[in-house]
Amino acid sequence: MTRQELINQIQTKKTFLCVGLDPDVEKIPHFLLEEDDTIFEFNRQIIDATASYCVAFKPNTAFYEAYGLTGLSSLEKTIKYIKHEYPNHFLIADAKRGDIGNTSRMYAKAFFHRLHADAITVAPYMGSDSVKPFLEFDGKWAIVLALTSNIGSNDFQLEQGKNEALYQHVLRTASNWGTPDNMMFVVGATQVTMFDDIRKIVPNHFLLVPGVGAQGGSLTEVCKHGLIKNDIGLLINASRSIIFASNDKDFAHAARLEAKKIADEMSTYFN
Amino acid sequence: MTRQELINQIQTKKTFLCVGLDPDVEKIPHFLLEEDDTIFEFNRQIIDATASYCVAFKPNTAFYEAYGLTGLSSLEKTIKYIKHEYPNHFLIADAKRGDIGNTSRMYAKAFFHRLHADAITVAPYMGSDSVKPFLEFDGKWAIVLALTSNIGSNDFQLEQGKNEALYQHVLRTASNWGTPDNMMFVVGATQVTMFDDIRKIVPNHFLLVPGVGAQGGSLTEVCKHGLIKNDIGLLINASRSIIFASNDKDFAHAARLEAKKIADEMSTYFN
Repeated sequence: MTRQELINQIQTKKTFLCVGLDPDVEKIPHFLLEEDDTIFEFNRQIIDATASYCVAFKPNTAFYEAYGLTGLSSLEKTIKYIKHEYPNHFLIADAKRGDIGNTSRMYAKAFFHRLHADAITVAPYMGSDSVKPFLEFDGKWAIVLALTSNIGSNDFQLEQGKNEALYQHVLRTASNWGTPDNMMFVVGATQVTMFDDIRKIVPNHFLLVPGVGAQGGSLTEVCKHGLIKNDIGLLINASRSIIFASNDKDFAHAARLEAKKIADEMSTYFN
Repeated sequence: MTRQELINQIQTKKTFLCVGLDPDVEKIPHFLLEEDDTIFEFNRQIIDATASYCVAFKPNTAFYEAYGLTGLSSLEKTIKYIKHEYPNHFLIADAKRGDIGNTSRMYAKAFFHRLHADAITVAPYMGSDSVKPFLEFDGKWAIVLALTSNIGSNDFQLEQGKNEALYQHVLRTASNWGTPDNMMFVVGATQVTMFDDIRKIVPNHFLLVPGVGAQGGSLTEVCKHGLIKNDIGLLINASRSIIFASNDKDFAHAARLEAKKIADEMSTYFN
């Protein structure tokens, strides 16, 4: 999907919500455990319930790998389902991969050719040759971790270097490897005081922003400091607060209401 | 596996070689493509041929994920085979995972409980809560990326911070999260001038050292600057130079000779 196609989606639907599909089986409504493929069935209902309020879905691979081949089969089915039923939604594999060049290339094939994801999240620690292989596929995206939403972001990302903090150095360096047409950055919603500085370094790149909802980040604040005029430039992700809004029979409806609530707030940022 | 058990293996066999199982199907001998499970069959023959010359095997998950569910089934079979036939070998899942706390916990389950790996490589960028979940399993190890063997290590890892380079800061900080009994560090053999400094920061931790062989690192130099007296403290990995030593009918024998050559050199470091 091109940047302009993504922006068109966002403008048409007046939402820039991304729904994180992190199906922890311990939190899934119990009655779904009777299904042949519990994870897929849970995802399918969440996807159908929330699709009109979001422009992207983001399965985190950990929640599928934890269930071995069964889980990975559920992931494949989930992605196929989205691609078939909602072909205009942007599909992010939240995998945080990154390895030496020839190995990153294998990951790129796995996620872009095999799974048909539009984007994959990438860890920057190993540098240029670990990220660049993800930029060689037309219409596909690398979403590089810059400043994450968790407490551990203090350990290295916020550490001051010679001229700037590590996350700023990552933004400045990695933004030269790609373009705003094939690269985005992860910036946690919990880091709202940094958004002004971040927009000085990457004024045109989309930011994938986790941490709204269960992790406590504020949508209003993120929009105030991160939004790009006209292009929006934000994909704001919520996972647990939407998909586990209820763990009863009404879970899909509850997820829909939660997604709608966020989308309604987002709609106020459009003319 | 405990640190002492690993050291005992090393002392008994007089080798600290780790064989990297990175089965790129484009490089595997063509006649194996007729096998039902090409990747597993390739691995099985490499494992049998090299087991007496190494103490560890390290499949890199990218080379399995690239072939979808088939590849992941080959990975599961490979690990089961090693655990059954060579239960004393140390098994490293080279996966370079790392995510926020609750998600890293899912990865830890996937690799330690499901796949029964002894160790997993972990990317440090996301900080403490992304690494600590891998340290909560008895006899299991997190192997944290510190200074990698690739050209991209120049981009951030070698970047000078306020007091020291990022990789030194990672070594110093992360070594406080675990102990030499549940944590190792990745240091590339191509970074040999840094080994003296590294040993000042982590005198007792095992280092997993890729980059000998195809990537051009020197075993002699790594040993000179990285070896710990008595405990050895190094696992030196070679992948391509061993497993693709020949791509003909004799590939397993060629791999064996290549592994033996390295092990013979290693044996000179024992009394």
